[in-house]
Amino acid sequence: MIRDLKELFESPEVYLDRTVKLEGWIRTHRKQKAFGFINFYDGTTLQELQIVYSETIKNFNEVQGFFVGTAISIEGKFVKSQGVNQSFEVVAQTIKLEGASNEDYPIQPKKHSLEFLRDVAYLRPRTKLFQAIFRVRSIASHAIHKYFKEKGYVYVHTPIITSNDGEGAGETFQVTTIDPDSTKKPTDYSTDFFGKKTCLAVTGQLEGECYALAYKRIYTFGPTFRAENSNTKTHAAEFWMIEPEIAFCDIDKLMSIEEDFLKYITRYVLIHAREEMEHLDKVSGGLGLISRLNALISSAMVRIKHKDAIKLLLEADRKWEIMPKIGKDLAREHEKYLTDEYFKAPVFVHDWPKDIKAFYMRMNDDNETVAGVDLLVPNAGELMGGSQREERIERLMARMDELKIEKKELQWYIDLRKYGGCKHAGFGMGFERLLIYITGVENIRDVIPFARTPGNCDF
Amino acid sequence: MIRDLKELFESPEVYLDRTVKLEGWIRTHRKQKAFGFINFYDGTTLQELQIVYSETIKNFNEVQGFFVGTAISIEGKFVKSQGVNQSFEVVAQTIKLEGASNEDYPIQPKKHSLEFLRDVAYLRPRTKLFQAIFRVRSIASHAIHKYFKEKGYVYVHTPIITSNDGEGAGETFQVTTIDPDSTKKPTDYSTDFFGKKTCLAVTGQLEGECYALAYKRIYTFGPTFRAENSNTKTHAAEFWMIEPEIAFCDIDKLMSIEEDFLKYITRYVLIHAREEMEHLDKVSGGLGLISRLNALISSAMVRIKHKDAIKLLLEADRKWEIMPKIGKDLAREHEKYLTDEYFKAPVFVHDWPKDIKAFYMRMNDDNETVAGVDLLVPNAGELMGGSQREERIERLMARMDELKIEKKELQWYIDLRKYGGCKHAGFGMGFERLLIYITGVENIRDVIPFARTPGNCDF
Repeated sequence: MIRDLKELFESPEVYLDRTVKLEGWIRTHRKQKAFGFINFYDGTTLQELQIVYSETIKNFNEVQGFFVGTAISIEGKFVKSQGVNQSFEVVAQTIKLEGASNEDYPIQPKKHSLEFLRDVAYLRPRTKLFQAIFRVRSIASHAIHKYFKEKGYVYVHTPIITSNDGEGAGETFQVTTIDPDSTKKPTDYSTDFFGKKTCLAVTGQLEGECYALAYKRIYTFGPTFRAENSNTKTHAAEFWMIEPEIAFCDIDKLMSIEEDFLKYITRYVLIHAREEMEHLDKVSGGLGLISRLNALISSAMVRIKHKDAIKLLLEADRKWEIMPKIGKDLAREHEKYLTDEYFKAPVFVHDWPKDIKAFYMRMNDDNETVAGVDLLVPNAGELMGGSQREERIERLMARMDELKIEKKELQWYIDLRKYGGCKHAGFGMGFERLLIYITGVENIRDVIPFARTPGNCDF
Repeated sequence: MIRDLKELFESPEVYLDRTVKLEGWIRTHRKQKAFGFINFYDGTTLQELQIVYSETIKNFNEVQGFFVGTAISIEGKFVKSQGVNQSFEVVAQTIKLEGASNEDYPIQPKKHSLEFLRDVAYLRPRTKLFQAIFRVRSIASHAIHKYFKEKGYVYVHTPIITSNDGEGAGETFQVTTIDPDSTKKPTDYSTDFFGKKTCLAVTGQLEGECYALAYKRIYTFGPTFRAENSNTKTHAAEFWMIEPEIAFCDIDKLMSIEEDFLKYITRYVLIHAREEMEHLDKVSGGLGLISRLNALISSAMVRIKHKDAIKLLLEADRKWEIMPKIGKDLAREHEKYLTDEYFKAPVFVHDWPKDIKAFYMRMNDDNETVAGVDLLVPNAGELMGGSQREERIERLMARMDELKIEKKELQWYIDLRKYGGCKHAGFGMGFERLLIYITGVENIRDVIPFARTPGNCDF
């Protein structure tokens, strides 16, 4: 029976001095006259296994010709290694070619730049770095589903193609079956696939609210899209979002949920992706990745009103590039001061000025601020954004009028408030933003298997 | 502390004769002069709880005015019921309004047609039927993740926006930021967001293959899109797909995985959504839903070559509307005969004529058939489609030429074969097709929270 490398490393005592069969790929290949050493991996664990072969195998010459990247199957004895770099190795009895590689294989055993690896994104998950990153991505996904399942949330698939632009903010991608070259101007969208103009969803929140008012607790976890033409390290046109929504929940309870959720996911990844996290910690160059995440888990997260945060910033003995001001957004330098210097902890900034937040956030009694909350974390800035939603129909409609938001496509959303629309709240977290934080990787292009950014839609 | 109804019903002995606090909604409301009976639900379980109140509560008159759909919070004593329709009830001490409803609330305590409920899709998850359906959807999703996690598959998020149309078959939705009304003809796609023409993915398989050749076993679970203008019960423009891909796997092993997977998911849902499945079994009207699924779990799935299936159909004592023919596709009547009459079991039909299958399927030695496999199940037809992929680069390119498939956007896919591209295989399952099968619901519009079909993109 073919074994996974993971099985061998997890229970070496079971396999020691026995014949094992493996399938995988050559990461490096060192040849000597009568011997060869293959650094072998199969993708089930970050660890590699040294395969030693000698002239005793039938196809010695063939095997010596195997390039890096070749797929092979092996039968051999799993033994304690004499080498200093590994505890175990396999002494091969047979090595069979399963898929040839070539001399020009782009992933050679040397340091490649991240930019180069983006160009060969179809091959980069074979490198140790990306094996770690994308297994963390998978494990973090599982953690998210596990958390919500345990807490009784229903997983909802909200639509990707939509006729409303959600927050009324972001720029959207149009989705169409009309060929612009064979349509008359102005375009008649009644002839389009859905009989109207449609776009890719920037959020599933509004539809999620419908389900929260039916199931009490729901979450979404799916792709969302922004056609924002910004080429930064943290923007992608396509990314995955997690958006829980909870009925009978106010902003205070929401912050408790956010804190519990974030600590759970982080703890889960540290435990279940231990090897990968240790590797990322090592290559992140003194970032102190794991200790940073352990600090997050054991932190007492701070809660502060936006206006109190501004006061605190104004009192700081600091020359600001952008002057903090009540009623205005926080700049990156302000966030950094709050989390990294003043509180030295993650900080919930809540009750934001209404004019810089979305139309659906609940108006506070001061008529100036809304029940929105951003979670800022040390070294990374904003990680989650949430709010208690406006459940009072007149207030909601007045706010939509103020912000000139078209009501037609959102009538159902307004009507939700007519039919048992109790208080409710929810938050959104960009999955890639979390991954950047957890993996210590700097560029969003390196935590998405095939990233979509302005001018880039390869693979 | 606020309790979920689910907790009360799971451990009634803990709460019996004690005061409990609940939050939820009124499903029905029966008023008498000095009493009232509220059928109460909170979305955490399919079960309802009767709330009895009398003139002893302070706001008796206010409560009597609560319409169906009203959100309320309750404090009261959880007691054994005298009624014949329920085991337990709550005698209310306080009932508080949390969100008013209206007389015109569309979900009244009477039978609504499925068509009507589609029109109020933002409210329909509050009905017992859709509570059951969408909780099954959530639980089945969890089952899928759990299965693959246990078997060591890495979860991969393949791109949604793409510049290749995957199978080279389906009609795709264009994704663009170009306004057709303000662009010159012919449209210059180099000015589009990605600098070229892009569309919504019809599959994640091709990108999934890259990851299978790095991690050995991977799966995708995400939305896919077809701009097919067909208004049938089983077609939607947006649906979720599960696409596992396994390195070093041939078509025989693939069938074993498919069988194991399907039985696991079905068993999991029957166990973990027992209440919901019993309700669906009851309302599906003599379909024998649960026994049908139990039959699937305990079935020995049959494997038959396409050409042998054709022979068997030709030998059948049956007048066919469409004559079975070697080299041709199976018609619905043929599938039905195989699964429902001849084998009385799920049937894997494999080794299909090359001309009716996709370009990436592995060519068999006969040069006439490819290593593709469809799983047909009794009462439902095709549930999964898979294949061993063509790993031989010359064969793959020859096939692409034959089918006139543009190689430019797929060069990376071809190159995968140059670099350790061992034999591998995978399958795809439309999640909604599985849900139709499991829930006994007939129309795909009723297993998607907000369905997208030609002319329909509401909510």
